[in-house]
Amino acid sequence: MKKVRGGITAPKGFKAAGMHCGIKRSGKKDLSLICSDVLSNAAATFTANKVKAAPVIVSMENIWNGKARAILANSGCANACTGNDGIEDARLTGKAVASALNIHSGDVMLASTGTIGTRIPVTNVLTGIRTLSKQLSRDGGGDAADAILTTDTRRKEIAVQVKAGGKIITIGGIAKGSGMIAPNMATMLAFITTDAAIPAIILKLYLKEAVSKTFNMTVVDRDMSTNDCVFILANGMAKNRPLLWKDENDFKHALFFVCAYLAKEIARDGEGATKLIEVRVAGAKSMNDARLAAKAVAGSDLVKSAIFGEDPNFGRIMAAIGYSGADIRQEKVNVFIGHAHVVNAGRAILGSQAEAAKQLKGKEVVININLGRGKNNATAWGCDLTYDYVKINAEYHT
Amino acid sequence: MKKVRGGITAPKGFKAAGMHCGIKRSGKKDLSLICSDVLSNAAATFTANKVKAAPVIVSMENIWNGKARAILANSGCANACTGNDGIEDARLTGKAVASALNIHSGDVMLASTGTIGTRIPVTNVLTGIRTLSKQLSRDGGGDAADAILTTDTRRKEIAVQVKAGGKIITIGGIAKGSGMIAPNMATMLAFITTDAAIPAIILKLYLKEAVSKTFNMTVVDRDMSTNDCVFILANGMAKNRPLLWKDENDFKHALFFVCAYLAKEIARDGEGATKLIEVRVAGAKSMNDARLAAKAVAGSDLVKSAIFGEDPNFGRIMAAIGYSGADIRQEKVNVFIGHAHVVNAGRAILGSQAEAAKQLKGKEVVININLGRGKNNATAWGCDLTYDYVKINAEYHT
Repeated sequence: MKKVRGGITAPKGFKAAGMHCGIKRSGKKDLSLICSDVLSNAAATFTANKVKAAPVIVSMENIWNGKARAILANSGCANACTGNDGIEDARLTGKAVASALNIHSGDVMLASTGTIGTRIPVTNVLTGIRTLSKQLSRDGGGDAADAILTTDTRRKEIAVQVKAGGKIITIGGIAKGSGMIAPNMATMLAFITTDAAIPAIILKLYLKEAVSKTFNMTVVDRDMSTNDCVFILANGMAKNRPLLWKDENDFKHALFFVCAYLAKEIARDGEGATKLIEVRVAGAKSMNDARLAAKAVAGSDLVKSAIFGEDPNFGRIMAAIGYSGADIRQEKVNVFIGHAHVVNAGRAILGSQAEAAKQLKGKEVVININLGRGKNNATAWGCDLTYDYVKINAEYHT
Repeated sequence: MKKVRGGITAPKGFKAAGMHCGIKRSGKKDLSLICSDVLSNAAATFTANKVKAAPVIVSMENIWNGKARAILANSGCANACTGNDGIEDARLTGKAVASALNIHSGDVMLASTGTIGTRIPVTNVLTGIRTLSKQLSRDGGGDAADAILTTDTRRKEIAVQVKAGGKIITIGGIAKGSGMIAPNMATMLAFITTDAAIPAIILKLYLKEAVSKTFNMTVVDRDMSTNDCVFILANGMAKNRPLLWKDENDFKHALFFVCAYLAKEIARDGEGATKLIEVRVAGAKSMNDARLAAKAVAGSDLVKSAIFGEDPNFGRIMAAIGYSGADIRQEKVNVFIGHAHVVNAGRAILGSQAEAAKQLKGKEVVININLGRGKNNATAWGCDLTYDYVKINAEYHT
C-alpha cells in the first residue's frame, strides 16, 4: 500500500469541484459536488441520532439499491429541524444535480453540515449546482474537501493505492469533523471513492466494520449530530477481478487505513484541540468492554482537561475506566501514560509522575490500559479540552 | 415545612466540628467529624463506579446493619487507587474515631474527597480526630460543611423543620460538589442528619428515591468519581411516633427538598459555572426516557457552551434529545427556552431567537421539553461550560 496525491479524485473516473455558493456569510467555500463517470456500487452509514437532518432522510432512501453516482454536500447549514419543507428543499437540490449531470436523482447522495433550524438558500444552491457541474475536474478533490469544512482548521484528505484482484486500485477520501464527534460519529462527514470493482453488499460490510473501528471510536465531546454520514462509491474502473468477501485482504486493510487516517485527523483537529489522544485498551473480557473503556477515557472531560494541562492525572483515567460500564476489577488494571507505568494492579505507582508528565509534552499522547481480564482490544481517539473549545462553542452562532 | 439555621447540627442530638489537620497544602479546613448523641438508624448510597475508594469500601461494610453514630470525612485526598494499604489507613482512622468517642468502630461512616492515588497522612488525621472529638459542638455544622469542600467556591448547607409523627422533626444536610458530578453522583458527598424516629429500612427506601431524583439528576461534566456517597443518620431524638412507609408524606417531602436544594447548589457551583441550568422533560413514554432526555440535554458540552455564550442554540438541544437514548419522534418534540417557544413539532420556530436569547441572560436558565409521547416527567440540573472549567481542571494537580 502506498499513499498517493489527489484525495477523492485520485481513483479513476472520479471528478469533483467545490465553491462558495452563498450559504456561509464568511465567503468561504460551502458547496461541493463529487461525481463518478459511471454508475457505482455504493454504501453508507448514517447518524444514530433519532433527530435526523433532511439530507440524511433523503440519502437513506437513495442508498436502498446499493447504487450511486454523485454526492452533493454543503456546509454552513445543516437543514435539520426544518420539517417537510427541509426535505422538499433537499429533494429539489438532488433533482437539480441529476438534471445537470444527466443522471437519475435516486443516484445522488446528499449531505449537509452547519447550523440547525434554518432552511438552505435553495436558489443559491441551485445556481451553485449549475456552476459546479461545469467545473467538475480530475483536480477538484481539494476544492471539494475544503467546501465541506465548518470549524475545522484544515483540509482532511488522503488517497492510497493497493493491489487487489490483479490490478492496482485506488481509494481516496475526504472528511470534515471538529465539534460533536461522539458518542458515535457526529457532525462528521466522510466521503470515500474507489475505482475497485466490488459488490455493493461486500462494500457495505467492509464499510460498516471500518466505521465501527475508526470514526465511531473518535470522541471530541460526546455529542452526536443530526447530520453524520459516511458514503463510499466504488465505480469498478480499475477493472480488477471483482473482490469477494474475505476476513482479511489488502483492499479491506486499505479502506481501514483511509478511515483511520481521517478519524485521527478529525480528533487531532477537534475544536480547540492541541493534542491527539490515543487510548489503547487491551486485556478486556469482551470487545464491547474494550470499546467502552477506551471511549470513556478518551471522552472524559476531566482526562481531556488534565492532558491539556500536561498533568498525568491517572486517577481520572482510573475513574473513567470504572464508570465506563466495562466489566473490570480495579485490582487487575494497569495504566501506562506513554512509556510511564502509572497504575500497577489498580494502585498508583509512587514516583511515576515526573516521567509521565514528560510523556504529555508532545502533540500526540498515547494511553495504554490493560484490564487483565481477557484478550480483547480496542483503540479510541480523542483530543484535549481547551479554552478554545469553550470559546468556539460559546461564540458559534445559531 | 420551614427552613431553619444550623445545617447538620440543627436536628436534636447532633454535634459536629471541622478543622485543618494537615492534608491540604493551602491550610484550609480538611477534616470534619459529625456525631449523634445516641446510636442512629442510618442509610447510604455509594458511587456506581467500579473503581471505589478505600473509605467507600469500608463504609459499605459498616452500613450493613442500618446503624451508625459518627461520620468522619476528609478533603484533599481521595484515598483511592491506594490498594490494601489505603483500606488499612481508612480502618485505622475509623477505629481512632470509635476510641475517641467511645463508640463501636462499625458505627463510624468514612468519606474522602480530593486527589486520587496518594495515601492519607494518617498521623495528621489521627491527631486531628483527637482534637475534633473535643471540639464537637451544637454550633459546629458550618465548620464541618467547610471541611469537606475542594474546588467548591462556597459552603452548601440547609436545615428544615416539618411536623411528622406528632412532633416537629428537623432534617439538616451538607454537601460538597463541583467537578465530576455525573453520570450518577460524582465527587459528590452529602451528609444528612435528622432527629426523626424512622426504621432504617424505610429511611433507605426514602433516601434511594430522593437521591435518584436529585443528586443523580445533577450533571456537571458527565464524569463519575470513585468516592461519591450520601449518608443519612436518624437518631429518633424528636420522639415522634416512628414513621412508617407511605408513598407521600411530609417527612419524605422534606427529605426530597433537602436533597434537591443541595443538588441544585452543587450544579450552581459546578467548576467555573456562571449559570444554573434546569432541564424539565415532560410527555415521555417512560420515566427512564424522561430521565435520559433531561440528563442528555443538561450534560451536553455543546448546550452548556452555548448557554455560557447566551446563544439560544435549540439545534444542540434537539441533537441531545435525539442521541439521549430516549424513545422519541422528532416531529412530536416541543422545546421552550424560558418562556420562548423555539421548537414546535420538531421544527425550529423562525424569529423565536431574540426572545430566547433574553431568557438566557439570568443566573438560572430553564429549558422545558415536551416529548409528546406519554405522561412521564423528569428534571435534571446542570451548569454552563466556561473557560474557568477548563482552567480549573487543567491546573488542578494530581
